Order: sequence, then C-alpha cells, then structure tokens
Amino acid sequence: MKKFMDKDFLLSTKTAQKLYHEMAADMPIIDYHCHVNPKEIFEDKKFSNITEIWLGGDHYKWRIMRSNGVDEKYITGNASDREKFQKFAEALSKAIGNPMYHWCHLELKKYFGYEGTLNGETAEQVWNLCNEKLANMSARSIIEQSGVAFIGTTDDPIDNLEWHIKLKEDESFKTIVAPSFRPDKALNIDKAGWLEYITKLSLVSETPIVSVATLKEALTKRIEFFNSVGCKASDHGLDYMVYSPASKEELDYIMAKALSGEKITKDEADKFKTDLLLFCAKEYAYYGWVLQLHYNCLRNPNTKMFQTLGADTGFDCIGPNNSCHSLPGILNALYSEDSLPKTIIYSLDATDNAFIDTILGAFQGTEVAGKIQHGSAWWFNDNKQGMIDQLTSLANLSLLGNFVGMLTDSRSFLSYTRHEYFRRILCELIGGWVENGEYPEDYKSLEEIVKGICYNNAKNYFGI
Amino acid sequence: MKKFMDKDFLLSTKTAQKLYHEMAADMPIIDYHCHVNPKEIFEDKKFSNITEIWLGGDHYKWRIMRSNGVDEKYITGNASDREKFQKFAEALSKAIGNPMYHWCHLELKKYFGYEGTLNGETAEQVWNLCNEKLANMSARSIIEQSGVAFIGTTDDPIDNLEWHIKLKEDESFKTIVAPSFRPDKALNIDKAGWLEYITKLSLVSETPIVSVATLKEALTKRIEFFNSVGCKASDHGLDYMVYSPASKEELDYIMAKALSGEKITKDEADKFKTDLLLFCAKEYAYYGWVLQLHYNCLRNPNTKMFQTLGADTGFDCIGPNNSCHSLPGILNALYSEDSLPKTIIYSLDATDNAFIDTILGAFQGTEVAGKIQHGSAWWFNDNKQGMIDQLTSLANLSLLGNFVGMLTDSRSFLSYTRHEYFRRILCELIGGWVENGEYPEDYKSLEEIVKGICYNNAKNYFGI
Amino acid sequence: MKKFMDKDFLLSTKTAQKLYHEMAADMPIIDYHCHVNPKEIFEDKKFSNITEIWLGGDHYKWRIMRSNGVDEKYITGNASDREKFQKFAEALSKAIGNPMYHWCHLELKKYFGYEGTLNGETAEQVWNLCNEKLANMSARSIIEQSGVAFIGTTDDPIDNLEWHIKLKEDESFKTIVAPSFRPDKALNIDKAGWLEYITKLSLVSETPIVSVATLKEALTKRIEFFNSVGCKASDHGLDYMVYSPASKEELDYIMAKALSGEKITKDEADKFKTDLLLFCAKEYAYYGWVLQLHYNCLRNPNTKMFQTLGADTGFDCIGPNNSCHSLPGILNALYSEDSLPKTIIYSLDATDNAFIDTILGAFQGTEVAGKIQHGSAWWFNDNKQGMIDQLTSLANLSLLGNFVGMLTDSRSFLSYTRHEYFRRILCELIGGWVENGEYPEDYKSLEEIVKGICYNNAKNYFGI
Repeated sequence: MKKFMDKDFLLSTKTAQKLYHEMAADMPIIDYHCHVNPKEIFEDKKFSNITEIWLGGDHYKWRIMRSNGVDEKYITGNASDREKFQKFAEALSKAIGNPMYHWCHLELKKYFGYEGTLNGETAEQVWNLCNEKLANMSARSIIEQSGVAFIGTTDDPIDNLEWHIKLKEDESFKTIVAPSFRPDKALNIDKAGWLEYITKLSLVSETPIVSVATLKEALTKRIEFFNSVGCKASDHGLDYMVYSPASKEELDYIMAKALSGEKITKDEADKFKTDLLLFCAKEYAYYGWVLQLHYNCLRNPNTKMFQTLGADTGFDCIGPNNSCHSLPGILNALYSEDSLPKTIIYSLDATDNAFIDTILGAFQGTEVAGKIQHGSAWWFNDNKQGMIDQLTSLANLSLLGNFVGMLTDSRSFLSYTRHEYFRRILCELIGGWVENGEYPEDYKSLEEIVKGICYNNAKNYFGI
Repeated sequence: MKKFMDKDFLLSTKTAQKLYHEMAADMPIIDYHCHVNPKEIFEDKKFSNITEIWLGGDHYKWRIMRSNGVDEKYITGNASDREKFQKFAEALSKAIGNPMYHWCHLELKKYFGYEGTLNGETAEQVWNLCNEKLANMSARSIIEQSGVAFIGTTDDPIDNLEWHIKLKEDESFKTIVAPSFRPDKALNIDKAGWLEYITKLSLVSETPIVSVATLKEALTKRIEFFNSVGCKASDHGLDYMVYSPASKEELDYIMAKALSGEKITKDEADKFKTDLLLFCAKEYAYYGWVLQLHYNCLRNPNTKMFQTLGADTGFDCIGPNNSCHSLPGILNALYSEDSLPKTIIYSLDATDNAFIDTILGAFQGTEVAGKIQHGSAWWFNDNKQGMIDQLTSLANLSLLGNFVGMLTDSRSFLSYTRHEYFRRILCELIGGWVENGEYPEDYKSLEEIVKGICYNNAKNYFGI
Repeated sequence: MKKFMDKDFLLSTKTAQKLYHEMAADMPIIDYHCHVNPKEIFEDKKFSNITEIWLGGDHYKWRIMRSNGVDEKYITGNASDREKFQKFAEALSKAIGNPMYHWCHLELKKYFGYEGTLNGETAEQVWNLCNEKLANMSARSIIEQSGVAFIGTTDDPIDNLEWHIKLKEDESFKTIVAPSFRPDKALNIDKAGWLEYITKLSLVSETPIVSVATLKEALTKRIEFFNSVGCKASDHGLDYMVYSPASKEELDYIMAKALSGEKITKDEADKFKTDLLLFCAKEYAYYGWVLQLHYNCLRNPNTKMFQTLGADTGFDCIGPNNSCHSLPGILNALYSEDSLPKTIIYSLDATDNAFIDTILGAFQGTEVAGKIQHGSAWWFNDNKQGMIDQLTSLANLSLLGNFVGMLTDSRSFLSYTRHEYFRRILCELIGGWVENGEYPEDYKSLEEIVKGICYNNAKNYFGI
C-alpha cells in the first residue's frame, strides 16, 4: 500500500515517477487562465486566517458543504470563520474520491507543511497551524514559492488595468501578470445589466455606442489597449455555443432594440452574439491573441439561491449541449476569411470531448503546431478521471505532444498545486504507456512531450 | 489468477478485501426500490422449479436468450420449463462480461450451493440441484437468509395494500415491507387506459374525478392512506423528464379534453404531467417521503412484439434525453416554494451522470446530508462498469460518503445478491483509492463511509 | 517494463497471452468492410515507395500532420515523397497514445521487419528500408501474407464489378473478394451531383428513372447483379440516422421536384432517404445480405478546404446525434413487415454505444445468433480506448460471444495489422476477466468466444 499522498502520489510506475520527478515537477508554471485579482498581487495581500483564503470565495468548497447538509449560515452566512472551517473539515472526510480532498491536502502539505488529514477532529490543529503560517505568507510569496512564470488574469474590457500596469513596472516581481480580454458583458445583450454596461463601455472607450459598428469600434479600442498592456488571450464564456449568422440590417435592428431597452429574443441574442464573437475573434487573430471558448454551462438554475446569493456561488450545472451544430460554424466562418485565431475550446460537458477532438483536426493551421486546442478538463471535469478522459481522447484523436496543458481557472493563490496534480496524472498516463510497451522508452522524445505539455508548449503558444 | 468468483471476487487488494469482509458484507440490506409482490411474501410463496423463479418474469434473461437467436417458444412460449432452462444455459456461456453471468452464479452459489459453471452441458445437473433445493425454500426464507431489513415495493395508488397491512400485522416476519407510491397511470394522460384508470381511482378514493382539482384530491387521499401503511417513498417513471409549466385554465382544458375521451397532444401531456408531478412532489415533501425520478426510457419500440407480448417484456431501450432542460426546471419550481422533497434521480442514459451530479449540488438542503441524490446505476447501467462510472462521477462531483446506495429494482426474490455485487464493487473502488494513497488508511472514516453507503445512509434517509 | 510492442504487446496477463497466441493470432481475417480497390488486387499493384502506400490517400495520417502545423504542401501538395515522409515521421513522435503510432509500427514490423521507432531522425533509414522491401511486395502478396480469407469492398450500384468478376475467375488467388452495395449517391437527393448520378444509374440499369418506382426498379436490378457477383452486404453512410415516413404522393412529389432540378429541403430529403433505405433494406433481407448503417458524421465542416481538396481528405468530425429518435423507427418499420435484414449499426459518436447496445436486444431474430449487431469501434473510435468501450458496453448489454468482430474500413493494403491490434485488445479484455475471476478458466468456452469473434461469427453471419 502506498502512503497517503506521499512523494509518488498518483505515480504507480517507475517510469511515471521518473517522468514526474525528473522532467515535470520543476518546470515553471504558466497559469494562462485564472481569476486571481491583480490588485491583490500588486499589494501583496495577506490573509487573516485559512477560512478567508480557502472559503472566502471558493464555490467548489461551498458545494461540498451543501452536499453535507450544512446550513448557509456556515457557508456564506455570518457564522464565525472558525465555525465555517469546522463545518468544511467535517464534510471533507466524506469527499472520498473528490478532487477537493486532494487539492486541500496538497495545499496543506505544500504551503503549510501539514502532513496529516483534515477532518472534524483535526480541524482545530489545522486551523492553528495554517493561521500561524499565514502570518508569514502573502500573495507574492505564494506565487514565487509555486514557481509561477506567467499569470493570465480574466478582465473586463472596461477595466483600466491599473494593477497590471503597476505590476509591469514593478521590477521586483518576476512573474509576468497579463490581462485576458473577456467581453462577455458586451455580448450578453439578453442579460440584465447590458445597457448599463454599454454606457460604461462608451465612457471608458470614449466612443458613443449607438450601433453595432460603434460597439465594435469601442471594443477595438479596448483590445488595442489590452494589447498594449501585454494581453495574450481572450476568453468567451457562453452558456452554449452560438452560430446564427445574420444580415447587417438584422443586427442593426437587434442592437437598436436593445439600446432602446426592449427585450431581446433568444434568437436575436444568438445572432448578436455570433456577430460579436466573430468580430472579436478576427481582432484577436490580428493581434496574435488566443481565443478561449468556454461553453455549455447552465448558470443559476436555482432561482431562489440566485436571488439570495447572486452568481458564481456554487449553483451552476452542466447545460444542454448543442455545440455539434454551432462550433464548426464559428470555426468555419473564421477559417473561410483567413481570420481564425489560435483557439482553445473548453466544454463543460465531457461527452463533448471526442467531438471537440475531431473538430480540432479540421481547422488546424501552420502558425504553430496545435493551433486549435482542446482545453484542459474544465471546472466540473477538473478531477483525476476528467483529466484522464480529456488526455486520452486528445491523444487518440490529435497530437497530445502539442497540448498547451493545465491552468487553474482559480480565484485562490493556493491553487497552483493543481498544476502538480495535473502533472502527476499526465506522467502516470504517459509512464503507463511506456511501461506497457505502448510507447518506446525514449527519454528524449518523452522529455520533449512532458516538458512541452507542462511548460514549453504554452510558452510558445501564447508567445510568452 | 483468481479462482472464478471466489470469496474475494472483484476484490483485488487487501484493503478492498478488508473493507468488504469486515465492514460491508454483514450489513443488513435495505432494498428501498423493487418490484417483488407483497402477496407472495405474505403467503410465503414456493417455487416449483428454477425456471419459474428465474425465467418466469425476468426480461433481462429473455434478452440474453433473444440475443442468442432463441425462438420465443423457449422464452415466453409454450416450451417446457426444462427446455427453456436449457436454452438459457446455452446462451449464458456467451454472456462473458455481462452482469447476468455474475448474477446467476452468485445466486447459484448463495442460494443453491452450486460452485460450478452453468452452461449447456451442466444445465441438467443444475436443474436437478436447484429444484431439489427449491423444495425447501420460500419467499420468506430467502429474504431472511439474505439479511433484508427493509423492502420497498412498487405500488399503484389504487392498490388497497392488503398484503402490506397483513405483513405489518404478522409479527413472525421481521423484515419491514413498505409500499412505494407510483402514480404513473394517473399521470400518463396520453397513454391507452388512462380514462379507465381514472374511473378506478375515483371509486377507490371515493372522490368523483371530474377536474384537475378532484384528481389531486383523490391522489391526496391515497397518499394519506399509503402513508398510514408505512410508505416512505414514491416513484415516478417517465419516458423523459418534463417541465412545461401551464396555467390553471390550460390544465383544466387538457383534463376536460382527456376526460371526454379526446386525444391529447404531446405538448398537452407534458403540461399535465408537469403539474401533477409538482403537485405530488409537494405532498411527498409534506409527508417526508422520498421522490424517486426514473426517466429516459424508450418503451416498446418494437410494435409487433409489444402487440404480441405487451409491456415490460425486454424490448425497451435508452431513450432520447433532454433532461438538461427539464430536470433543473422541476427542482427549481419545488425549491422556490420550499417544497422540494428528498429526491433520488435515476437516468437510463449514463452520459447524464455528470449532469445529474452537478445538479445535485444546486438543490441540496439541511434536512438530511445528501438530500438530493443520484440513484444507483439503473437497469441497463446496473453492471460493473455502470456502477464504477456512477460511483466515480458521484464521488468527483458530490459527497460519495452520503450516498444511499444500492437497490435491486428486481421482480425476483433471488436478486439480493446484487447488493453483494454492488458492495464488492464499492469496496474495490474505495480500497483501490486507499491502496493508491488517494485516501488515508483511516479505518474509522472508511467504516463510516462503507457502512453508510451499504446501510446507514439509507436507513437515515428513508427514516426506517 | 515491457519492451515497446514486443510479442506480448497489449497482453498483460498470462491468460491474455494464451488466448491471443493460441487462439486468436492465427485465425484467418474476414475484412468484411473496407475501401481497397479491387482493380489493384486483380492487377497485383506494386508501390514505388512508402509515401505512396502510406500517405497517398490516408486522411488519418494527414490529420496527424496538420495537427503538427505542417503545411499542405507536404500533405496533399507537390512536395517530394521523401519530404512528405519526413514531415510525417516528425509528427509521429508526438502521437503518443494515438492509434496511428501503433498502426505504423505494427506495419513497419510485420511487413518491413523494422523493429525500431520511426521519428524525424530515423526517417531516412526507414524510408530506404521500406522502399527496398516494397520492390518485392504487391497487393496480393500483402493480402496473402496477412492471412486474409475474405475482403468486402465498398462499391457503387453503377459499378460494373469488372474487377470482382475477374478476381472470381482467377483461381490462383484464394482470398474471396466480394463487392458491397453502397447506394449513398442514389439516396443523397439533397447533395450536388444527384441528378447526374440518376442519369448514370438509368443507363447502367437500362431503366429510365422517372419516378420513385423506377428508381427502385433500377436499384433492384443492381442488387440482383451485385448478388450474382457474390455480394453479401450493403453499406449506408448517413450524416445522421433518418426516420421520416411519408406518403407515396409526397415521395413522388419530392422525386419529381428533384428530377426537375429543384432544390430539396432537409425535411424532404429525410423522407426520401427513409423510403429508399427501407426499400433497400427489404431487398437485402430478401437476398440474405447484411445491412450496414454508418451514421453521425459531420462531413466537410471546413468549406475552404473542401473547395480546395474535396471530400474524404481528413476534415470530417463527429456530427450532431439524433439516432435515439430515428434508429428505432427504421428497425421497427422493417421488423413490423418481417423484412428486417441482418443489420450492423455503427455510430461515429461513442456516447451512442449504450443506446445501440440496448436497441439490439429489441430487434433480434432467429436466423442467426446476434442478428442485430453493434459494429466494431468505427473511424474516430477505432483506437484502444474506443474498442475497450465498445466491447465492454456490448458485453454488458448483449452477448459479446456473438460479436462479428473487426474490419479495417481502410483504403490501404497494409492495414490488416488492425485486426491484430483488435485481437490483442480483445484477448487482453477477456483474459483480464478470467484472471480476475470474472469468467471461469474454461478454455473450451473461451476458445469458442475468441475464435468466434475473430473469425467464425463473421463467417457464419455473412455466409462466407
């Protein structure tokens, strides 16, 4: 029996261990898509206790607690931080087979030196230990300790990127922190708040937005600005993939309708989003940015809890998937005009894996090996089985050797251990193939593949 | 090599063996959803031969025979019981990798002491052995030998529960036999026989059903009655999940139309079913019952065989799945009115696993840990791979430790070995994680988890 | 560690090795569905170099190259054969986990005696070795060396089967080469070229096609003719399964519309295809042929590359799947009229596996054990994981022992090693079950199953 999460955690063969320890473990981290706050990096935020850094905004952990029958008081309510930590610790014991179990213990080990198990009985000890250590930890120290070379945050077009600019100027901090352009609010013409957002975008871009054309003008200016601050990538979060081409007249009509405050139909919204997405993608292609597409999420299905707690609080689920119709449409429209940017596709529905992996091959290009990518197992798929499935499908249907690899997608500075988790799973998979005679024991090729997926491919792909 | 189905069947590690033999094996069985006949329990039915108990009504076995090219004469026709048994035995040899192979041999071993292999050549010997043993076996003796603490049968609202009442009064029989409320016939307004059924329901409930309101009145009375006899759960079998809200006027119109014998459209039927399902669910919540939702089945796709043999004869298949649209709708409607009961969700389409596991977390409550459950791998998924997939997905996306575990869904008294099969697979999975360093070798936590999933969680959940 | 692709490649247990080496390896090959050219067999084609035989028409390999950022010049363009081979060899190193890696090395080993690894550095050596060997190889010698007993090609109804007839008459060649009837062009009323095709079919069948009835007459004649040349099977390639019944009048209207050159709607095309498919299937039933259904492919999603390179050039992907609605409809319509032929179902979407495996059981017959089959993992699923998934699902839900097994679906004479690949995976799976105590160590039954799936079942099923 292997000891719980020892140094060869998830590495069952000699080859897997060798690949991980000798090739993967020490590669720097490129966390090209996450949700950390650049202000907190610049200001080198400190954390008062483990509940703040762990449970403050992590809706994955909130879910675990809700699945254990815990009252909201102890999740998002006014219970004390210590009480909240206790409830979480008690729930965690039941999370056998859940990635949260591993993430927590990897973080406790790496950042707090705790080798034990967190549960209801050890919660007090862990609470004290972590809080003591946190006194000497900060956003920057965690990032540095984690070997992070690049952080791609997620930013709104109207953001002034103040903290990114300051971070660029701060020579004492070696990690590159770049913004990513996420114009969802501009595209979501059918969601509450769109009109207010357009007003803000008008102001920030100094472009009166009165039409589709002027909206595009405003976005172009912001893309230019983001580019000047080092942006390498965009991100589009869509409930479902859209591809509904429409005429200029239709689009103008839809825009005018929305600007006048009228309600937009689903069909109209799809047309508008399609047009804006295609427009943005062409801009990204121009700047050599990467287009990230995240789709297939049903957001806020629980109305009551949405009204109580708002979005991104742990109530989303996998959504109805129709990407087989729309994803090829979007890629084809861009390819046809020679304006398909480097693209990474993420679906929340893992039954989409093979579909995505087959479509990659239909739209590749010569700018970079693996121009069209299938993103690392996302969100609900970000677990051992989900990663194995994504990697296996990608290997079967494309070239695994060109994969740009892992990202945390996280709001927390402690999540970099997810790269370690991914790398172990990757090395176990590849090592298993070698041990099983399915790939030669050729360490030159293996090193190229492993280091590529861990670091070099992303470095090259994003142009870091 | 391991011997065929020895005591460590499916248990490949020391930890898995320990978990199974020391924790799981001897826990009583709560078979909270099945189709056995309470009359046969009360009357302590005996069986004349192995064909009667095995092949009399088991459409899983009929499928195996049809897949081997066997004529209906030997399946549902007038061949002799001995001939039918022979044909089944011959087909079974080819069922390598099929759960039927294991179910049969587990039953032969446990109930008949047969350690060999059933095939065309041994059929005569097995026939004689089983029939000899059956002379001294009966429904009750099998249930007792199997350690069954609770049986939840499946019953129609118009049932007078005569046998359940008699069983409650019979102190000599220790196993609790409770009815489950399955009002499918009342909801299936679009199926043949609905009107006749409504007439019967009127009579039984002493409520003239002339409107949606009076139908609900009748159902309420029956729910009250079922509750008085110890019912703990309901069950809804739906071809596909519905969520089509409608106005009172629309529903009255649909009901009037159906009562007058007119044909109902699919859209009307969906509205009617949605309304009735929501109504029933609120009643279940009131009584603290569990709502079971079984959906995604295409029933009777073979018209000719349906006309010849009727329903439930082994001709169903997985149906078109649109639950991503409707399941959140149903749960949300109930949650919004604080009337969501404890709910167990079963889809016949295993590609739905992850979707279900993500939606659980969006609708949990504080009455019990794991209020919204993903049911054990159902019907076509009730096999080793299907269970591993359901357990892994549930573990990844929820708290496996709160799972209410296995049920047989069976018509046969010999099926309790399916709990053994499930427990072995569960212990192999959990044991594997421990051996692999993915969960600590902490037997206190492991015992809580294993015994919980085998027995305690269901006991607590159903309030037994 | 196992050596790369040694004699026990993919066989990790003693039982798996025994099953493969003693039972599977030497069984003749029935390649009942492929795309090799009978003319090339008759003329005993020779190949000038490895690029011609490997990269001439293999869009799987083209995909690998495109996924590595290779320019079309080196794929379908005018680069030299040596340059193309180099680019492919360089890409192959990154294809870890891809079946192409194994296929290539199995072929290099079996046909060229090369035991090393193909990559950018060894490309020159491999190029020279292969070309030297190719001088003494030919279509027939490869087929004979591969132990191929039967080849089912894929042929258009208008084909005069000249080469099949010559091959039948050539007693020096022992392998049976039979045509398969693939009338896609006659069914594809909505695709460019249909009208021209109908004209050709009129001529070849000596039947003026002016209506649905005369089209059927023409097809009947061709089916008769194909049957006289030894045809055993048909093949229908559908973007998606159709089942849209229509009246004779509607169908006549659609046909007239199409004959007059008017554009056909999707709905009309579905009706036409449904009618023709049902008609053809009845004819196949009459002749005892096998109906093969291949569906769920999105063809040519990349318009620009389609316009440049045409169809079947490596740009297809998995398509939107609605077979849950239509497949039962087609099977039921035929079953209802006692005219369902032996049928093999292939979906490009592996999430369809379980659905297909459940529908098999609803339409079986007594002509042959396993009349309705789930075809071997097709195209994008034709890899280790895809085969394991197909076999496991089939075993769980049907009788694996009656499976008709593998086919290459290939355009190349070197692809027969895919049968070896399949057999190894099959024996590993079955051997694993035996080693794990899930099936008895009963070599009589195992031999029947293994030899059945490798050869005997297909022989019996196709009536070879």
